This record gives sequence, C-alpha cells and structure tokens, in this order.
Amino acid sequence: MSKPVTLSESGFCPHSLNKYASLLATGNGYLGCRASHEEAYTHQTRGMYLAGLYHRSGKGEINERVNLPDVIGVDIFLNGELFSLLSGTLESWQREIDFATGELTRSLIWRAPDGARFAIESRRFVSAEQLPLLATTLSITPLDSDAIIALSTGIDATITNHGRQHLDETQLRVFGQHLLQGIYTTQDGRSHVAVSTHCRVNGDAQSCFTAKERRLMQHTSSLMKAGECLTLEKLTWVDWTTECDVSLESWGQKGILHLNACVGLGYDALLAQSAANWQRWWQHCRVEVNSVNADDQRALDFALYHLRIMTPAHDERCSIGAKGMTGEGYKGHVFWDTEVFLLPFHLLTYPDVARNLLRYRWHNLAGAREKARINGWQGALFPWESARSGDEETPEFAAINIRTGLRQKVASAQAEHHLVADIAWAVVAYWQVTGDEQFMSHEGLTLLLETARFWLSRTTEVKGRLEIHDVIGPDEYTEHVNNNAFTNYMAYYNVEQALHFARRYGCTDDAFIHRAEHFLQFLWRPEVLADGILPQDDTFLSKPAIDLSAYKTTAGKQTILLDYSRAEVNELQILKQADVVMLTYMLPELFTAEVCLNNLHFYEARTIHDSSLSKAIHGIVAARCGNPEQGYQFWHEGAQIDLGDDPHSCDDGIHAAATGAIWLGAIQGFAGLSVRNGALHLDPALPEGWKKLTFPLYWQGSEMMISLSKSHVTISSSRPVTLWLNAKPIIIDGEYKLAFPDMILPVFGTATTERGKE
Amino acid sequence: MSKPVTLSESGFCPHSLNKYASLLATGNGYLGCRASHEEAYTHQTRGMYLAGLYHRSGKGEINERVNLPDVIGVDIFLNGELFSLLSGTLESWQREIDFATGELTRSLIWRAPDGARFAIESRRFVSAEQLPLLATTLSITPLDSDAIIALSTGIDATITNHGRQHLDETQLRVFGQHLLQGIYTTQDGRSHVAVSTHCRVNGDAQSCFTAKERRLMQHTSSLMKAGECLTLEKLTWVDWTTECDVSLESWGQKGILHLNACVGLGYDALLAQSAANWQRWWQHCRVEVNSVNADDQRALDFALYHLRIMTPAHDERCSIGAKGMTGEGYKGHVFWDTEVFLLPFHLLTYPDVARNLLRYRWHNLAGAREKARINGWQGALFPWESARSGDEETPEFAAINIRTGLRQKVASAQAEHHLVADIAWAVVAYWQVTGDEQFMSHEGLTLLLETARFWLSRTTEVKGRLEIHDVIGPDEYTEHVNNNAFTNYMAYYNVEQALHFARRYGCTDDAFIHRAEHFLQFLWRPEVLADGILPQDDTFLSKPAIDLSAYKTTAGKQTILLDYSRAEVNELQILKQADVVMLTYMLPELFTAEVCLNNLHFYEARTIHDSSLSKAIHGIVAARCGNPEQGYQFWHEGAQIDLGDDPHSCDDGIHAAATGAIWLGAIQGFAGLSVRNGALHLDPALPEGWKKLTFPLYWQGSEMMISLSKSHVTISSSRPVTLWLNAKPIIIDGEYKLAFPDMILPVFGTATTERGKE
Repeated sequence: MSKPVTLSESGFCPHSLNKYASLLATGNGYLGCRASHEEAYTHQTRGMYLAGLYHRSGKGEINERVNLPDVIGVDIFLNGELFSLLSGTLESWQREIDFATGELTRSLIWRAPDGARFAIESRRFVSAEQLPLLATTLSITPLDSDAIIALSTGIDATITNHGRQHLDETQLRVFGQHLLQGIYTTQDGRSHVAVSTHCRVNGDAQSCFTAKERRLMQHTSSLMKAGECLTLEKLTWVDWTTECDVSLESWGQKGILHLNACVGLGYDALLAQSAANWQRWWQHCRVEVNSVNADDQRALDFALYHLRIMTPAHDERCSIGAKGMTGEGYKGHVFWDTEVFLLPFHLLTYPDVARNLLRYRWHNLAGAREKARINGWQGALFPWESARSGDEETPEFAAINIRTGLRQKVASAQAEHHLVADIAWAVVAYWQVTGDEQFMSHEGLTLLLETARFWLSRTTEVKGRLEIHDVIGPDEYTEHVNNNAFTNYMAYYNVEQALHFARRYGCTDDAFIHRAEHFLQFLWRPEVLADGILPQDDTFLSKPAIDLSAYKTTAGKQTILLDYSRAEVNELQILKQADVVMLTYMLPELFTAEVCLNNLHFYEARTIHDSSLSKAIHGIVAARCGNPEQGYQFWHEGAQIDLGDDPHSCDDGIHAAATGAIWLGAIQGFAGLSVRNGALHLDPALPEGWKKLTFPLYWQGSEMMISLSKSHVTISSSRPVTLWLNAKPIIIDGEYKLAFPDMILPVFGTATTERGKE
Repeated sequence: MSKPVTLSESGFCPHSLNKYASLLATGNGYLGCRASHEEAYTHQTRGMYLAGLYHRSGKGEINERVNLPDVIGVDIFLNGELFSLLSGTLESWQREIDFATGELTRSLIWRAPDGARFAIESRRFVSAEQLPLLATTLSITPLDSDAIIALSTGIDATITNHGRQHLDETQLRVFGQHLLQGIYTTQDGRSHVAVSTHCRVNGDAQSCFTAKERRLMQHTSSLMKAGECLTLEKLTWVDWTTECDVSLESWGQKGILHLNACVGLGYDALLAQSAANWQRWWQHCRVEVNSVNADDQRALDFALYHLRIMTPAHDERCSIGAKGMTGEGYKGHVFWDTEVFLLPFHLLTYPDVARNLLRYRWHNLAGAREKARINGWQGALFPWESARSGDEETPEFAAINIRTGLRQKVASAQAEHHLVADIAWAVVAYWQVTGDEQFMSHEGLTLLLETARFWLSRTTEVKGRLEIHDVIGPDEYTEHVNNNAFTNYMAYYNVEQALHFARRYGCTDDAFIHRAEHFLQFLWRPEVLADGILPQDDTFLSKPAIDLSAYKTTAGKQTILLDYSRAEVNELQILKQADVVMLTYMLPELFTAEVCLNNLHFYEARTIHDSSLSKAIHGIVAARCGNPEQGYQFWHEGAQIDLGDDPHSCDDGIHAAATGAIWLGAIQGFAGLSVRNGALHLDPALPEGWKKLTFPLYWQGSEMMISLSKSHVTISSSRPVTLWLNAKPIIIDGEYKLAFPDMILPVFGTATTERGKE
C-alpha cells in the first residue's frame, strides 16, 4: 500500500474558512473537531462534538449534537496586537491534513502591519488510539526582532450551536500551573462532559488564570528573542457520561489521570501511537487508484478518512450523522444515508462496524414502534431523523415560504417512509456479506419482522390490489404521492426478505406469514411502461416539465425554491434526486440494463441533483449500464460536492452520504461490485482515465484483495470464495490473475480463471 | 442653556471596540443598545437589552439581563468581499455620539485591499419619544468605480449572554418585501419579546430572505455606480410582555402597526421627534461648567446622558443596573449604587423618577422579608443584587482562588447588609427633597419600618450594649467583621428615622416603638479615637498595613488579588473603598470637618480604590473639607474610570455609580449642596479651574437655577425657598445674585441676600 495522500488548503481565504474547517476536520468517531484556526474570525464556526451527545435546548427546538466548549481557540497577541490574517501580510502559507496519520498542520510566515515577521506553526490530531485525546501544538517565532508574545487559551464554554446553549457549567477547576478542567452538564441534567486540558508554554512565561463569562482561561506572556521559538503544547481529554455513579469530582479526576499520562508522553509520542493505528486501519481498507487525475486518489483517501472519523465504531448506541461530526448541519441527525450510503463501506471492510450501525436501529426499536403506533400503523416506523434515542427528531420547519412569509413545515417525518425498507435492505446486505447467524437470528430477524409489519399495515386496498398512498420517495421535491415506485418496490423487498428469514428461523407467527404472503401477492409495484420508463409514482408522468438547465448549474443549492414554492415544485416534473435510478441501484437484480439505462436518461433530464445523494448513484448506474465515462463524470461531480471550488461547499459539515458515495462509486460503479441474490458480482468498468484500481474486501469471512486494470484482474482471498466475474462464476482460492483484452469480457470461464493462477 | 457636547471615538482601534460600545451606547431607559459596529469583529460584544427583562438560563446560573437578538449587525459585501476595518486602509474616520439628540454617527472612507474607495456612513438612535423604537441608517458610496454592494441584515437570535441563551424562537415571519418579525420567548415561558424590523434599501436591489440557525435575514444586492449612494434604512420596534392575553400573533401585529407608522415618517422625522424630547430633558437638568478643561463639561454631559438612558423611568417594577443597559456586567443587577449614587440626581431634577426607584424596592418587599426570615431575622433584608423580583440574585462564585484552584464564593449576599439602611436613607432623602406625604405615609413608612425591623433583629447583646456582628461594609476587602462603623451608624440612622416617621404618622405598634427606643439607646456606634480616627470596625486598626502604591496605580483592576488571596487581604489594612469616608459623606451632619479630614487622610492611604464607587466620594468629602483642588483630582480620576485612556475601561458596560458620581461630585462636592437635618445647604468650593458652574435644581416644589462663580452666586427659584449658604440661612424668592470675594465667605447675612436682588 502506498501512503495515503494529503489534502491542502491552497491559501488563506476568509470566504472558505468554514468549508475547510469541515474538510480538514480531525476526529476518531468518538470526538470530532472542526479545523478552525487558533485565531478567531467573525464568520468562522468552531465545533467539537461527541458521538451520541445530543440535547434539546428549549421549546420549539429539537435534539441536536451538542457543540462542546472550545479548546482550539488561542488569542495570540504579538507585541500587544491581536493576531489575525485579515491584517498584515501573509508571506508564506501551508496547511494540510495528512490522511495517513490524521494530523492537521499549518505553517505560515506573517508580516505584521508594523513590518515585523513571525513564523507561526500549528499541529493537531485527535487520537485514533486514545479516543478522548485531542493534541495540539502552536509555535511562534519572531523572525526579525524580539517580541512579547501573549497567549490566552483554555476552555471556552461560550460556544453554542448557533446561539442554542446546551451545557450548564457545573464545576470549574485549575490544578497547579498548567491544568484546567471544566465539567459541564446538559441542561436536562442527563449527561456530563468533562473537558480537561493541559497547557504548557516553554521557557519563562508569566501566567495567570481567569474564570469569567463561561471562559476558563490561561494567559501567558513571554518575551522572545528574535529567532527563538515559543511553543504551546496543549493536550485535551474529553470524557462524557450519562450514568455517573461516583461524584462528578471523582469522575473528573479519572480524566485528569489519563491526561497526565499523556502529558508524560508528549505530543510527538502520542502522534506516533495514533499514526500507527491509522496505518493499520488504512492497510485494511485503502482503495488505490492509478488515475490520470491525481485528485481521484485524493477524493478516495478523503472519503475513507472521513468514513472513519464520522463513525462511532466504539458505541453501538449511536450512529453516523448526515454531516459526520464535522459541523452542525442536520443537527447531527442520522438519516437513511447511514444504511444506504455509509454502511456498505464498513460492511465490506470492517463488518463489525456495520453490525454496530444495525444494532443502533435495533436498540431504538421501541421509539420506532411508538411512532408507528401513534400514527395508526403497526411494526416499526423508524424516525426520519434520529439522534440517540429512537424518537423522531425531524425539525418542524424548513425555509421561509416566499409567498406567505411563513416557514414551511417539513413533511419527511410524516411521509418519507422508505427509510423503513432501507434499514431492512441493509440488514439483508449485512447477512449476505457476513452470514452472521447470531445477529440475523436475533436482531436481524426482529428488524426484518418489525419493518415488514409496518408495511403490512401501511397499505390501502384499491380494487383488489394493495397500494401505498401518501408517501415521499427519496425525491423530496415530490411529496404526498401514491405508489411511489421506490417505496413500493423496497417495501416488497422488505416483506419478502422478512418472510424468507421468518421461515428460515422457524417463525411461528402464522398470522404474520399469512399477511406477508397476501401482501406480496397483491402489492402493486409500478410496471415499466412500453417506452421503457418506470413511473416514479401514480401522477408524476402527467405533470408538466420545465427547463431545469439553470438550476442544474447550481445543483445542491436548491435555487429552484427561490423561484417556485414547494407546492409549485410538487406539481412539476422536477426531481431533487431520481427515485427510479436509486431503485435500480439498490435492487439491480430486478431490472435489465436496458431498463436501467432508459430510466437513467429519462429521469436525469428532470433531476436538478439538489440532493447530495444524487449524482454518485447516477454514476454507479451509468457504469453498470456500460457507460463508465458518463459514470466517471457523475462520480467526479459527486466528489466535488465537498471538494469542489465552491467556497461554501460544506460550511456546516461534509456531506457524509456523498463521501460514502465516493467509495461506492469506485467499488460498486467502476469495479462493478454488487451483491445479487446473495452472490458477489464483479463487473469491472474502469473509466478511461483509471489505469488501475486496487482495494481490499471482506466477503463471508475472507479477506480479499482485488486489483483491476485495463488488461488484468488480480484477486486474492484468504479463504476460497465464489465470485461472479462479468456474470461468470469463478472460485478464488489464493491469488488469481486474469488477463483480458478490454473491460467488456467476451467470454470468461473457468479456463481463464485457471490461467489466473500463473 | 448651551448645547450639550459630543463624545468622539478618535480612531478605529480593535482593542477599544467594547469600551466605545459602552460609552457611545444609545437608549432610553426602556431599551439599551451597545454601540457595536454594523460589521462584526471577533472580540466585539453586541448587546441590546430591555429594562426589567431578566432570565435564568440554566442550573448554577442566575437571573441576568437578557441579551436580545441583534438588529445592528450588517454583513457588508463590497464587490464580494466582506467589509472589515482590519483589512484595507482607513482614509478618514469620524465617530461620535451627540448627547444633545442621542444620535450616534460614524462616517468613514475606506480603501479596499484592491484599491477601490468607499464612503460608509451610519446613523443610529433609540427614540426618546417612542420607547420601543430603534432607528438606523447605513449609507455606502463607491467612490472610484461601480461596485456590487450586498447587505445581509435582519434579526440575529444567535446572540447570547456570553454563551448563555435565554430565548426560544417562537415565531418567525416575513411580511411583504421589507418587514421581518421574530417573536421570542424566555425559556421559562414567562416573557415574550417581539422584534419587528423594516429594512429598506433604495434603488433596484435584488432581495431575498432566509430563516436559518436562529437568523432571520434579508439579503440585498445592488449594482451601484461610482458616486451613487446606497442607503439602508432600518427601523426596529421592540416590544415585550409578561402578560399576553391575546394570541402572540395578534400581540405581534400591534408592534407592526406602530412600526409601519414610523416607516411612514422615516428616519429624519423620527430623529427630530426624539431630539426635541431630549432638548426638553436637558433644559431641565443640564449642568454647565466653564472649566479650563473642556473634558469636564464632556464628563458632565456624558454622565447625565447615561443617567437618563440607564433609568427605566417608565416602569417602577424595574430599577437601574450597575452597568446601566450598556453591557452584561453584573448581569444587569441592581445594587445599593442605585439609591446612593444614582437616585440623588433624579431626586434633585426629576423627583418622580426617584419615587419610582423607591417604589421598585417597595414592590419587592416580599422577597426582602423572605430573605430576612430564612436567615433568622425580621423585617426586610433586601437582596444584595436584585433583578425584577425581590429575590437574591448574587452569583455564588467569583474569581478563581490562586492557591486552591477553586472558585471563590461571593460573601456579599450573606453579610453586606448596609444596603438595608442605604435604602432607608434614600427614602428619607426623598422625603426631605419632596415633602411627598402621600408616598411617605404609605410606601415610605413601610420601607422605613421594615428596614428598621431588620436592624432590631440583627443585633447581638454584648455586656449590655447592642452590637452588629459579622457584616461586610462597603469596603469588600474586609469581610465578616463586627461593629463596622458604616453599618452601625447607618443602622442607627435607619431606626431613628423609622421611629421618627412612625410617630409622625401615628404608628400604633408599641412593641416596635419600644424596641426601636431600646435599640437607639444601646446600639454601639464606634467612637472617634483620640487621634481623630473613627475605627472602621472592631479589628481593622489592629491589622498590619502594607505598601499599596503599586496597586493604587492600577486602581479598579483588583490586581491585589493576583498576589494575595481574599483571605489574606482580609487580614491586612487594605481597603477597596473607605467605609468611614463614605459614612462622613452620607451623614455629614454627624461629623466635624476635622474628623472628616482626619479620616479622609488616614483611610485614603490604605485604600486602593478598586471600587468604582470610591474616588468620587473621596472627592466630595475633600471639597466639603475645604480642599476643592484635592476634590477635583479625585473627581477627575473618578470621571476617568470610564472615559480614561484604558482601552478596556468599560468593556462590559459603563460604571453607572461612577457616572452618577460625576454629577454628585459637581453638585455635592464643588457646589457644596447637602441636605443636613432636612435643610438645603450650599457651601460652594469650586476648584481653581472651574470658572462657573450652573445647574437647575428641584427642591420642595420649587424649580431652582443655581449659578456659581468665584465672585458670584446667582440663585433663582420658582417659589420661595430657604437655603443655607455657607452655613447662613437665606430666603430665595425670585432671582438673587450674591457677590463675594472668595469662596469662603466671611459673613453672610440677610443684607447680602438682599443685595442679590440687584
């Protein structure tokens, strides 16, 4: 494995502060920390978050991921003037995150308005080895003349979620000369957070502490000779608990013991520990691409890095937020994005993580059952947006209606029910990849039965057939429709799989089995029309179409809503993302390549791609349909959702699903991996610019390594594995190398397979 | 009357942003608005407050004055770049508040980093005529070439009190093209605030609205030709209620009706209304001084301006916070400062306002009785810090102990009891100045009796005499002492006056009368020692003294606490302010000039003046002792507490008491006004630099005008008034002019008085 690459911020630009604060975020799935600068800027949003720590701050508010007290900020006074890159001159600049180690560094030379130059360097990582540890250093060297350098840093609990405060200050303490601790309690009294930080400045700094206005700060001042380097090493330990059975003081002491052990090691040794952990992780999952566009490898390393740091692998009581832990977007809530866009990566590399994500849903079944019940249905209706419990967390309001001046209600929680089937789909996928009987016979079966029971109760009988009315599909620009194709097909799959596993595990609930059989017999699934089009729902095809080209150029920004109300959009052929394309992606075995292609073309013309979930899926379907170049175009544009030129591409956090889709696109699109009827398929379709694609894969207990080029497929497996390569079954046992003239293999049988052994 | 002067900020300096945000604040006693800039700066604290609107934000927190959603902020994008004075070049600058009209203006020319120049002007006032109205304009002219000017402004509810959020968003609306309204509710559900704002940009601006993350914003963009001026006129109406008997929507509509009426008038007409109101007000109370130092007049106009805008004259259910409504300092709480430092100005100019301030205490008697009761005493123990109710609001913790790392408890609420007598003192003063029988026989008497009852229960009998143990006097560096002179004398005065008025109004509570007589007979009041010193308390004189000169140079900053713990300070002869000097100021009839002078010298040497209440009182006592030059030195230094060079002199709000003391110093110090045994005394002692001092005065139904110079005293009165001029009684009826060779009049009788009629 070559070393993962880095991602740089090419210069300082106040417009893109928050974009890079998201892109270059550090974390470990337990703690996420935005890549804010030490110095403050007015429009810079600081953020540090703990997986699973949500709180509701007031009436009319909803549970959101708590923005923690800040420890990154440092007021830097250089000869009495507050350092800011808005003044003076930046003479050199380098800022990058090293995906190999998770370390973020910045190095710059700045000329103050009075002419004196300073070298300023900072380094930062969140430990992959010790989850509560955030380590930072800040070094300042006056280059031209002696200077007084004063630093104020500590724990700043004035931080809010855009004005919503979640934490009460419970206890503030200072220990000795370097150690500060704040213990904070969520306003509902349920959770405690202990932030302990050790701030040490080299040399003879004068220091004092203040605790005022929710800021617990250490202030140091040093006279530095020209060329001498002042270094602040700041190590922070962030604990939290919802069940504190000792005194808060005793509990806080534990964190201080851990922190003191880290202080003994120091930044560099701690970094080495964490980097070694990262190396082991990359070894197991890195995707390497030899592309004419070096950005493609960067996009993949970016995606995998974020897939790791967004995922609370340590705690099955929480799942992945739609913006990871890189910002406040979507309030840290969990959507179907997790099961459909993020879980597959984990499933095919670290399946235990995928199991955790499914167990998160299983833990929250009570809330899902309750939501179904209070809405008059049965089984489990999972919340559209989910936090730590299974309660519905979708906010009541969205944007302002341009006509009425009123804020518009969010309808997803009421009607976007496909999520239920998406979770079932992921359960089946987990089973297919792992064959984990223990999970499947217990949590998996329960999830399948409860989701299926929801669908059994969700139908409306119309002239002898069962229909599903008043839903929203993935395309949220079309609300409250009947027989949404995506929903109906996925519901069918959900019930079908539930019935299958109910029988497999000897389920004795005959009523369920009978009702499921009836459902499968009578559920209406929209049919492909004579022109090859699968109608998105009962009415979509009858609506007028409009020219969307202007809106497509600003995809992702929902500019259509500046010109049309939501109600108007609903009555036009305008898609945020294409349901039918999504359906052909999720259940590929049900549709011919021709149907996939027809619908891709038809619906894409009507799709703005205002959802970050849209383009990458189009790319995968295009690649699967034999058009890897179109697939690459979509994939590339999908990767640009965060990484592109827009200075505000991801101000409030990276798009987790789009990040997951970078991996999906490479593996499910260009490597052509799919699981069809339980079998592993590989139908490679590398785009022209990709010379080689290599990736590890977990499949049913085997550790595989797959390498694809224009001329060869090389596959190794730790145990014998059956694989369908371009629709031909082969058995991999050891390492195989297969040559073929081009990506569409003419004939491909066991003989060729044997050649691979050469 | 000449026109009140202006106060300017001489240049833009990021260090002093918050100082000037306090100094140049606008307000009207109902609404207070910090003088923040339209553009944001990282260390700029925005603030807008409503008198009486307090809320407790969470556990361990206390009621504090709610920082309202911001309407001042405007993101100004000039050709796509966010305007900030930290970048580019400031080519001209003028910023000042006009005390005559209450209008704050800024006018600057700024050269962007790309070289293009812009003229930017803003104007702002809070209406003296319509209390809920805040009016602003912002004008931008590209000077060199056409420019795209984009403005984002509206109602920003991300504002907190340093991270503490008090308001839930209850309802957000946009009406038409210019009007935005947010209705917010305190998290306890008790109070509602409606912020309605009308934002109109001239010309053909493109505009849209967003409501996201607690910001309800209007965004406009205009292409302006070079030399063309873009003007935003933004009128804001701020209502609040604790008793909303109609729907919030109907209630909110009322504000919109008022606002629309204002929109019809426009900024200039609204300003003219408000300025006329200000003119009437100044006419009635302005102090004019002809001084060799022009800053003296500025200090006086500054003081009176702030005395008006800090005072909720419209609502007797609230009083004046220790920082007015100019910042979050002291959380907007009311201290004894109000009765002793602020009430006298109102009493002697607008006595109805003084009555309101006393009725505020009367309304809150229940809480004061309860505090006495739960502490085992009787009568009324008013809270050391007070908000809207009579509950104690003193925070539990102050600064961090430098030895233990623990935050230190605040002891004032437990032991700083002189406040009770200070309120009684103000009640008597009100009576003396107004002769208001209606108030005195009812609220006044109740306050006197209840405060007296507290003292009757507060004593400890020691060998036959009554002592008062374990108190803190005004000098908060000496805690938990017995027989604090200030407290004992003031308690005596309190009970003496209560007994007097009890008898006057035929009080039939014989038990009280008997106990009061006993108290007055046996209460120990520390006696002046042979060396002329009145001991501050039982132990002070036995403590060691240390050299305080270093700490005196940083008076007000409490730097002593960086070197000594509070416990250590308590065991040294170190005063924050001098109790005995304060006592001789408050009850001048009890002490000879010699005693006053002796104690001034003795205690001043031991006083750091870390309290903003300290210097001005020393100045008054010095002037009364015949040393106006020393008095002027103290007065001047007292005025510098806010107005001096320290860039952080009043970051979290102006010092209300010190502001009041600027007036006290001029009137009670240099004009020598005092009320002794109910009689009005004038003992002028103008400092050398003051050529003339003129001020209006209310006294027992008469509107008086007094003018003093080295050679003349001119006094006019609307009704006959008896006045003691330099200890000689004279009767003023009409206008009198009295000549005398110097300020210490040799003999002064009725003959001279008659000469005054010339």
